[in-house]
This record gives sequence, C-alpha cells and structure tokens, in this order.
Amino acid sequence: MTQGFRAPAQPATARGFRHPGRVISGAFLTAVLIGTALLSLPLATPGPERAPFLTALFHATSAVCVTGLVTVDTGTYWSGFGQGVILALIQVGGLGIMTLATLVALLLSRRLGLRARLIAQAETKSLSGSDVRRVIGRVVLFSLACEAVAAAVLTTRFALGYDEPLPDALYSGVFHAVSAFNNAGFGLRPDNLMGWVGDPWVSLTIAAAVIIGGLGFPVVFELLRSWRRPRTWTVLTRITVVVTAVLLVVGTVGYLLAEWRNPRTLGPLSAVDSVMAAFVAGTMPRTAGFNNLDISALQPETLFLTDALMFIGGGSAGTAGGIKVTTFGLLAYVLWAELRGDVDVEVGRRRVPPTNQRQALAVALLSIGVIAVATFLMEAMTDFSFEQVLFETISAFSTVGLSTGITPALPPGAQLLVVLLMFVGRIGPLTLASGLALRDRARRYQLPEERTIVG
Amino acid sequence: MTQGFRAPAQPATARGFRHPGRVISGAFLTAVLIGTALLSLPLATPGPERAPFLTALFHATSAVCVTGLVTVDTGTYWSGFGQGVILALIQVGGLGIMTLATLVALLLSRRLGLRARLIAQAETKSLSGSDVRRVIGRVVLFSLACEAVAAAVLTTRFALGYDEPLPDALYSGVFHAVSAFNNAGFGLRPDNLMGWVGDPWVSLTIAAAVIIGGLGFPVVFELLRSWRRPRTWTVLTRITVVVTAVLLVVGTVGYLLAEWRNPRTLGPLSAVDSVMAAFVAGTMPRTAGFNNLDISALQPETLFLTDALMFIGGGSAGTAGGIKVTTFGLLAYVLWAELRGDVDVEVGRRRVPPTNQRQALAVALLSIGVIAVATFLMEAMTDFSFEQVLFETISAFSTVGLSTGITPALPPGAQLLVVLLMFVGRIGPLTLASGLALRDRARRYQLPEERTIVG
Ligand SMILES: [K+]
Ligand SMILES: [K+]
Repeated sequence: MTQGFRAPAQPATARGFRHPGRVISGAFLTAVLIGTALLSLPLATPGPERAPFLTALFHATSAVCVTGLVTVDTGTYWSGFGQGVILALIQVGGLGIMTLATLVALLLSRRLGLRARLIAQAETKSLSGSDVRRVIGRVVLFSLACEAVAAAVLTTRFALGYDEPLPDALYSGVFHAVSAFNNAGFGLRPDNLMGWVGDPWVSLTIAAAVIIGGLGFPVVFELLRSWRRPRTWTVLTRITVVVTAVLLVVGTVGYLLAEWRNPRTLGPLSAVDSVMAAFVAGTMPRTAGFNNLDISALQPETLFLTDALMFIGGGSAGTAGGIKVTTFGLLAYVLWAELRGDVDVEVGRRRVPPTNQRQALAVALLSIGVIAVATFLMEAMTDFSFEQVLFETISAFSTVGLSTGITPALPPGAQLLVVLLMFVGRIGPLTLASGLALRDRARRYQLPEERTIVG
Repeated sequence: MTQGFRAPAQPATARGFRHPGRVISGAFLTAVLIGTALLSLPLATPGPERAPFLTALFHATSAVCVTGLVTVDTGTYWSGFGQGVILALIQVGGLGIMTLATLVALLLSRRLGLRARLIAQAETKSLSGSDVRRVIGRVVLFSLACEAVAAAVLTTRFALGYDEPLPDALYSGVFHAVSAFNNAGFGLRPDNLMGWVGDPWVSLTIAAAVIIGGLGFPVVFELLRSWRRPRTWTVLTRITVVVTAVLLVVGTVGYLLAEWRNPRTLGPLSAVDSVMAAFVAGTMPRTAGFNNLDISALQPETLFLTDALMFIGGGSAGTAGGIKVTTFGLLAYVLWAELRGDVDVEVGRRRVPPTNQRQALAVALLSIGVIAVATFLMEAMTDFSFEQVLFETISAFSTVGLSTGITPALPPGAQLLVVLLMFVGRIGPLTLASGLALRDRARRYQLPEERTIVG
C-alpha cells in the first residue's frame, strides 16, 4: 500500500502514514505545545504579567483545534502578538487537519473513488511524494483564496459601513475571515458577532466561509469540478451535500420557531433580520462556534437542538468537528434501509459495504461514550446545571466553541478536561476512522451463527 | 413459516401473528381503553366525583404499560376498586408483554436457538396451538409463583415488622409484589418506597422481584434449566446476564459515589444502609421505577447516570422497558469487534450475523430519535429545566416511571405526550425488532460498492 511513500524524499511521512493516528496526534500535540510556549511569553499580553500556564494551554489548544472556547476576552486580554499567535495557530490547525484528512482520504481513495478526482491519476495503491505535495499545495491555495475573498468583503464593510480606519478594518477582516473559514469561532469582540446580527455583509460572509470550510476539501474540490453532474458524485459528496442542506434548514427553522418571541434573542429583530439571524445561528453549530445571539439567553429547546447539531458537526476532511455529517448521514441511510427491509445500503447508485457502516457506528458510539463520561465528570466537578455542562462538553468535543458562558468560571480540573476534550474531539474521530478503514484483517474461521432478540 | 398457525383452533392468532406488531398494539390499546373506562367510573374514586378523562387515560396507560408514572397519589386518590383496576391492568400488561414477546421469540426461535429450550421440541418452522398454550401457561405459572413468593415475604414483614393488621399487610404485600415483578413501580404510599429505604426485607425482596421479572421469560427459563452450564447458553441469555450484572454494578457504584455525602439522599444513612440503598436505587432504573430515594434531591450527575440506565432498560421478552440490555450489549460487542479489527461479532462461541447487528442499531437510533423529538416538544410546552424534561421523557419512553416530580404539573398536552411515549415505548421496540427480524427480503441485484469517510 505504501510503495510510493518509501521514496527517500519522504521518509518521515512514509513511516508515519502507516500509522496515521500517530502522525496526526503528534503534529497537533507539537503545535499545541509551541502555541502554549508562545502564549506564555510576557509579549503575548499587553501588561507586564504573563498569562498563567493553564490559560496559555487552554487557548493554544482551543486555537489549534479550531474550537473557539475562551476563558478570557481575545480582543483585550492578549496583545497584538498574542492575537497573532492565536491567528497563526488557527491557520496551522485548520490547514493541518484539512491536509492530513485529505491525505488519509487519498490513502483510502481506492475505496473512496476519490483518487481520479483529487489528483487526476489512475487508481493505484501508492501515494507518491509528488501526490502529497500536490494535495498540500491545492489545500493551501484553496484555503488562502477563500480567506482572501472573505477578508476583502469584511474589510470593505468594516471600513465603509463602520468608519473603521483601514488598518483596523483590514486586521479585523483578516482575523474574522481566517477564523471563519477554519471554523474556529474566535472573534475580537467580547460579544463575538452579536453586534453584527443585523448586518448581512458581515453575517452572511462569515456564514458562507464557515459552510465552505466545513464541507471539507475533497467535497469542495469535487463540487468545483462537477457540480453540474450530481449523478457522478461520490458517496462522500452526495451524503455531505444532502445532510448539510437538511441540517441548515433544520437549524434555521428550529431557531426561528423556538426563538421568534424570545425578547433576548430574535424578539427585537425585524422579520427579515430574524430569518437571517436564525440562518446564521443555525449554521454555527456545524461547527464554527461564532455566536450572533446570546447563547445563555436561548430557550432550553434551542440549546437542545444546538446540542444535536453540534454533535453531528460538519463535513469530513474539513475544518469542522463533530462525528461528521457523513457519519450521521450514513447511519440514517442504514436505518432507512433496515426499515425498508433492504439488504444493501444504497446511496445514489452505489452500495456502501457493511464494514463502512460499522465504522460509522463505532465513531458515533465512542463519541457518545466520551461525551457521556465527560459530562458525568464535569457535573461532579462543578455546580453548573446539566444543560450548561452537556452543552459545554459537546461544544468542546465537537470543537464548536459555543458556550452558555460557563467556560471562564470552570475550576482548573474542569478546564483541563475541556482541553482534553478539544484535543480528543479534534483528532479522535479522524484517526479512529482512518485507523479502522486502513486496516485489513483476514477473516478467521467462522463460528456457527446465532441471533438474539433486540428491543 | 406459519403452517401450525393455520390450525382452525387458532384462526385469530394465526392471522395476526404474521403481523405481530398489529396484534401487540391492538391488544395493548384495547387494555388501555378498557382500563380508562373502568377508572372513569365514579366507583374508582372514594368521593362522588369521577376522575377526569385525561387522569383515567394517563393512569390506565401507565398501568398497562407497567410504567408507574402518576399524576395523583395512588393510595389516596383511587378507591379500593380503582386500585384493584390498576393492579389488574399491571398484571394484564405485564403478562401480556411477557407472553407476546416470548411468542415472538419462539417464532424467531429457529434463528435464536431457543425452541428446544423453551418447548422441548425439535426446531421446525411451525408454531402450533398447543405450543402457544404451553408458553402462555408457563409464563402465567412462573409469574404467579414469583409474585406469590414476594407477596409472602412482604406481607410477613409488613405484619410483623410494622404491626399492620393482616388484611392491610396482605393487600400491601400483594400490590407491591405484583407491581415489582411486573416492573411497574406503582406504590401505595405518597413517598413510594422511601419509607423502607433501610429495611432489607422490603427493599431487597422488591429489588429481587424487579430483577427476575426484568430479565425476561426466555432468559429466566434457560437459567432455571442450565444455570450450571454457562457454555451452553444462547446469545440472548449470555448478553442479558453479562450486561445486567455490569449495569447493576455501575448503578450501585455510581449512586454510592455521587450521593454518598448528599444530605437529602444517602448522607443520613449508615454505611451498610447506604450500600443497600444504592444497590436498590441502581436497580430501579432498569426499569421498575420504584424510588427509595427522593429523585428530585439527586445530584445532576446521578440523574444523568439514571438517564443512561433508563434508556438501556432491562431484558428482552420481560416486563422491563428501554432499548433492552440485549440491544445495548450487542452494540457494545459490535464496537469491540470493530476496534479489535474482527470481521465477525462473536458472543461466546457464536457469531451474530450482520442483519441482527443492524436491527440493534435501528432500535437504538429510532429510540434516540423519539426521545429527542419528545424532549424538544416538551421543552417547548413547559418551563421545566432540560434536566427534568429529559428525565421525564426517557422515563416514560422506557416505561420506568421515575420522575423528578414534574408529572402532576405537566399541562394536558404534555401529559398526552407522556401517554403516547409510554405506549410507543412499551410496544415500539418489540414490534419494531420482531417486524425487522421476521422479515425475509430477497437481495436484489447488487450495485457497485463504494465507501465514504466517516469521522
Ligand atoms: K469552532
Ligand atoms: K416501570
């Protein structure tokens, strides 16, 4: 499988990619540690005092894992240097996950039917150094191009619409564009995006960057090449597009219905602004984590809907977190096939093999398990309500970054738990899924078959 | 498959059992409607006024579905006649679900390996009228025997330990024994079992009846015959025993750790009483619903643990609710096989086929979906906290009957939702699983295979 990886130019990659989990977790851990060191410098804060270790670790992890949970106000607690470090960590984390996930997808490409689409090459078992370079180049180019467009729109709007001086507008535009495309959710204001809730230029630009970044590179690349021919789409693209569209509608309608009369959220807005705000708010749980509404003022049913959307997350091989829309969508197709009585699970005109179905089940069950245990532990460590704690753990694990506001008040142990959740949530599902998918284990002799009753 | 069912003596059964879902839901609906009519009689309440329709419907459903959620105090609101009706409905509901579920299991017995064990007959495709009568006879005999033993112990204790007059002690003993064996959770006191929290005779007798009733008839029957030879156990019995034991330990330890210092629950008790109370409390979510502790005083983490235990529920083909320990256990075995990289899922020395795994997935996913939608709706209908509402919907759907105390205060719409949840939760998983399992659908031509990335 790794013939091409043995080229002398790529020895580290070659060795590592037989165990993608180690490469990915090693790379992210290194980035977190460097980020923690940089944010611990006196230079990173405006005053003479350094940030405490836990604060530096928390924000470095939050940035590298493009989560966006914060215990301090990004715009005032950190100096220009500190904010620059955070921005760089977001960019490194976002590019890193996109690149690594796309490479894993390529390794699986024989099974995914992606190779021809991604690197215009016949399906073979090898992945050469030039393939790797080409993928990295395309991911970087695509990311920077999207971010540049979003930054240009935002800068123009900040300069013309809010009379900000050009350097300030440019800085804020770039920061928000990078944060949005990488689904990081970091803002520069204490109220995040709430001040722009009625501004379509800012809100919709950020929402568009979030959605595109969250689709994942393989899907975006396939859409760019063949959006006119949906019949040719891979299973990956088909599920991602369908489920993303459904979840956007569910999120928008859910927020509209539940918050329409809430005086602290959509209540004061006009009908048009309400629809726009609900659309943007419904986009963010998947899994950007910007907030244009006050999360702590949401109705309980809206928080619960958001829990579900955050858990599902965004597209595979992108900057989004969660179990991924592909995992959720595949399980939905499996359920549908079971209820219809179909032996095979068919997506479009393709059959998804049982091993692939079982991977989706494993990712979903393990994620539920991690969130359940973390919620239990955090309930035991704090006095916050179940609602708040569950929201926080799902937000951290799915690298969303939305919060009911309890993050800064968490005791150190609970903050460390959040750090762990963000890290595991960022690299866990990808390494788990790729580890499961890369493995080929021979079937042993078969035992006699027997069933059990379920239900 | 239904050769035997066509015997003239059993025409209704014959026709119905080709669609077990219709038989089961029809039978339960009839019982609920008769119960509602009886509880609506003036005779059912002590005073001259009748119970309102919604109250009668709610308690008839709660009794037939052996749930135990109540909006009024059973011991004072209903007359002796009313209490008798509730007791009869519990007995009918419990026997009904045990009998019907065991018959469904027998229909599947060729695949379950149960036939020889249950009716001492070679594996054939038919299920004759005499088989049906034999199963019903055994279920009734076994139920009444267990209830008689429990009633004897309880009556003796009530008479000797609490100086109750014999008729009162006998009535209370029988009521609690029937309620316990059928996992109904109805009590005669406003505080349910809380007054007996330190009484091992009462607490442990009820816990034992709950556990035995909740294992399910096929499992109990197999254990009675071959408890010395675990190697010969069916997959059903093996999973049920293992998972039940694990969940009892998790429940007991979880309650002990989380409530040890809580002054409103275990705090005031001695160490020995605390362990006993934690064991009994940890037994009840699977899915008896008696409470020996004040549920509204539990820590949030304990409520969450209880949510999980209630969702999982008890054994298949018994009086317990939930997705069943077999469903949960089978999914755990699937996850374990996936993480190990095994192609086959093996339980004991048997291989569980992929179709059976997919049924478990379908039951779990649909249950999650129903609970999620119901929680969202009930949040929108009421002002109770998310914690309380989630607990209530899981308790209703899994026919547990524990409550944080909000049931009587629910508005009529939410009470109707609870009625619906109890009914769907009682018959849903069984009819779904049997419907899925009874179906044999031919594989059509196969489409080309393609995978997607998950995670
Ligand atoms: K985020
Ligand atoms: K119950």
